[in-house]
Amino acid sequence: MIQEFYNLQVDTNGQKLYEFTDQTIEWINKHNFKNGMLNLSIQHTSASLIVQENADPDVQTDLINYFDKLAPMDDKLYVHTTEGKDDMPAHIKSALTNNQISLSIREGVLLLGTWQGIYLFEHRLHSQKRRIIHHFIGD
Amino acid sequence: MIQEFYNLQVDTNGQKLYEFTDQTIEWINKHNFKNGMLNLSIQHTSASLIVQENADPDVQTDLINYFDKLAPMDDKLYVHTTEGKDDMPAHIKSALTNNQISLSIREGVLLLGTWQGIYLFEHRLHSQKRRIIHHFIGD
Amino acid sequence: MIQEFYNLQVDTNGQKLYEFTDQTIEWINKHNFKNGMLNLSIQHTSASLIVQENADPDVQTDLINYFDKLAPMDDKLYVHTTEGKDDMPAHIKSALTNNQISLSIREGVLLLGTWQGIYLFEHRLHSQKRRIIHHFIGD
Repeated sequence: MIQEFYNLQVDTNGQKLYEFTDQTIEWINKHNFKNGMLNLSIQHTSASLIVQENADPDVQTDLINYFDKLAPMDDKLYVHTTEGKDDMPAHIKSALTNNQISLSIREGVLLLGTWQGIYLFEHRLHSQKRRIIHHFIGD
Repeated sequence: MIQEFYNLQVDTNGQKLYEFTDQTIEWINKHNFKNGMLNLSIQHTSASLIVQENADPDVQTDLINYFDKLAPMDDKLYVHTTEGKDDMPAHIKSALTNNQISLSIREGVLLLGTWQGIYLFEHRLHSQKRRIIHHFIGD
Repeated sequence: MIQEFYNLQVDTNGQKLYEFTDQTIEWINKHNFKNGMLNLSIQHTSASLIVQENADPDVQTDLINYFDKLAPMDDKLYVHTTEGKDDMPAHIKSALTNNQISLSIREGVLLLGTWQGIYLFEHRLHSQKRRIIHHFIGD
C-alpha cells in the first residue's frame, strides 16, 4: 500500500470557478500511481470543491450567478457580518456544495467523465491563497 | 489489499430517483469483500448520487418537486441554454447535491442505516444512459 | 493495512450544529493511526455531516436560519407530512448537505484547516440518538 500527500495552493481572485484538473493529473502521473483513491479536501469553509462541466464556460457563469442569488450578500439577512458582506454567504455556499471529494484512479487514469473537470469554487470577493490537500491511498 | 472496479449502467427516463442499492450489494456479495471503502462516482454533471429514505416514496416526490422549484427550468434565468431548458438546472442540482459518495463495508455488510437507500437522482427530462463507477479498496 | 470502525452516538436536542471534532481526534489518538483515510457516515437521512467554521458561533446561527428558510416547515409544500412538519424539510436539508465525509490523516494528524470543525447538523425538532460511523483505512 502506497500513500502520498500533496498540498496544492490555488491563488484566487474573486468569486469564480478555478479548474485544477491538470495539476491533479500531473501529480498522479509524476508518482506513477496505478490503482487507488484520491481524497481532495479544501482547508477552508468559504470556498468549495466541485466536479462540473468543463465544456461550455457559460455553465460556470450561471453557477456563480445562481449561488449568488441563493445566498445573497445582504448584511440584513445574517448575524455574522464582521468579516464582510461576502463571508456568511460564502459559508452557506460551502455548506450547499462540498469541502471534500474522493475520486478513483484505475490503471493510472483519474476516473472523470468526458465533460467533467475539478474546480475550486471561490466564494470570497478578494484574493485568497487556498490549500487543497491531495491524498492518495492505493498501489 | 484488494481493489476492484465495476461500471454500473443505469438507464434513466426522466427526472426521478432511481435506487440501485440492490445492484451494489449484489456486486459486494459476488466478490466476498470483507472490510473496506466503496467509492461511488457518477461520470456526469447533470445527474447526482444521493443517500435518501427508502421507506415512503412520497419523500422522493417531494425531493423532485423541491429541487425543480429551487432551480427552475426557465431559460430567462440562464446564459447556458443551448442544451435544452433542463440542462442548466441539472448542472445546478448536481452542484447542490453530490457527484460522489464513499461508503464503508464491515464484515461484508454495506453500512447503511435502516431507512437509507442509494439513489441516482436524474435531472434531465429525456432518457439517458448513466455510468456509476464502483471502486472497492480494502480486504 | 489497518482498518478500524467506531460508532459514535450523538444525542441531539433540536435543530442545531453539534461539534464532534474532539471525539473523532480522541479515537484517532487512542489507536495511534499514522496515515490513512477516515470515512464518516451518518446512518440517518434527516441529519447531516458538515465541516464548518468553528470560530464565531454566529455562523452556526445563520446556517440554521438560512436552511430553515430554504426548506420551510410548511405542510402545504409537501406530500410527505405524516412524520411531522420538520421531517420532509429535514430530508431536503440532508440532500442539500452531506451524509458522508472523507477526511485524511497524516502522521497522526487529522487534516482540517485552522478554522474547521466537524459537525452533526440536526434537522429534526425533537431529541434523537444519531449514529456516526467512523471507519479508518490506512497504516
